[in-house]
Amino acid sequence: MKRIHNKDDIVQAGLDIILSKGFNATGVEAILKQANVPKGSFYNFFSSKEDFGLAIIDRYSSEINEVLHPIYNDESSPPLGRIKKGFETLIARFEGNDCTKGCLIGNLSLEMSDQYENVRHRLEQCLQGWTKVLSGLLLQAQRVNAIPADLDAEMLAENMIASFEGALLRAKVMKSSEPLKNFIHLYFDTYLAQKEEVK
Amino acid sequence: MKRIHNKDDIVQAGLDIILSKGFNATGVEAILKQANVPKGSFYNFFSSKEDFGLAIIDRYSSEINEVLHPIYNDESSPPLGRIKKGFETLIARFEGNDCTKGCLIGNLSLEMSDQYENVRHRLEQCLQGWTKVLSGLLLQAQRVNAIPADLDAEMLAENMIASFEGALLRAKVMKSSEPLKNFIHLYFDTYLAQKEEVK
Repeated sequence: MKRIHNKDDIVQAGLDIILSKGFNATGVEAILKQANVPKGSFYNFFSSKEDFGLAIIDRYSSEINEVLHPIYNDESSPPLGRIKKGFETLIARFEGNDCTKGCLIGNLSLEMSDQYENVRHRLEQCLQGWTKVLSGLLLQAQRVNAIPADLDAEMLAENMIASFEGALLRAKVMKSSEPLKNFIHLYFDTYLAQKEEVK
Repeated sequence: MKRIHNKDDIVQAGLDIILSKGFNATGVEAILKQANVPKGSFYNFFSSKEDFGLAIIDRYSSEINEVLHPIYNDESSPPLGRIKKGFETLIARFEGNDCTKGCLIGNLSLEMSDQYENVRHRLEQCLQGWTKVLSGLLLQAQRVNAIPADLDAEMLAENMIASFEGALLRAKVMKSSEPLKNFIHLYFDTYLAQKEEVK
């Protein structure tokens, strides 16, 4: 019988289950069973279930950063194209999961923000970090005149991420990536397309 | 001692708690205690907790429709203005709750869609109903040239609602209505503002 005993394995098992079922619906026992860890060892590693939630967020965040950073840093593509490719890559992951699970950050944002202040702060950090990276790319896109220069890059980055999370929410209910594809089409082909004011 | 014994009171008590804490974190006992109802009576009214979840969604949906329909049907305002006022009214409610709770439909979309198929269908119905109403108003807005005529009104309606839910998600984490105000500004003053293509 395979024996797994370290903190990382508990975090990975927890991440898989919590992405599917949510934080509150997941009991510590189910996680330990999945990770094949004796019942007593959870509190050797985590002071509380909330503390465990923070470790799950950190793990998920690292995973997503490993996916997105090479895309965002690929200087052979134009900055707006990199942003689009980042979102498309996340959409492909969602489709690969049969339009389930979605984004852990979004899921826990709605489930936990009002109840777990430390979790809320960690989620805020993740979302701010993502906003900062997109904001930098949007400033570059403005310099090459790919998007209107009069838009506030930081506000726009924050709004794009929020709208992506909202499209993911809608897609999770619809069990289809259509809302996500509409997000890509509307933002990249319409909302941000370079236009001139009607005189 | 006040005695409350009917189904409506259990649904109202449940709605208040579930809007704050989520579905899975709320036990049936807590709801019955809040509604001042004997423990045994829950299953006289509901066949399961999922069935109760459906009743909660219906109640919330009615409440929101009572708020939004007079705004959407106010023919003294232009159609795009009515859509904007509808969102602003929901933002004011969120601010009135100290930037907590948010939208039950959005909250349960992420928490329950993968686990409760009947709930997912009910949420889908609610979101489709809202999309249909907005879509009609957007078509009217196109007729008076308030928004670009080449946009697909139904796709746009679906995207506006998704982006609003995403902005609410972001606002719940930030504990500020700033992302919601950015949503209003970007959609109504920028993305949908009438412009001409650069030749």
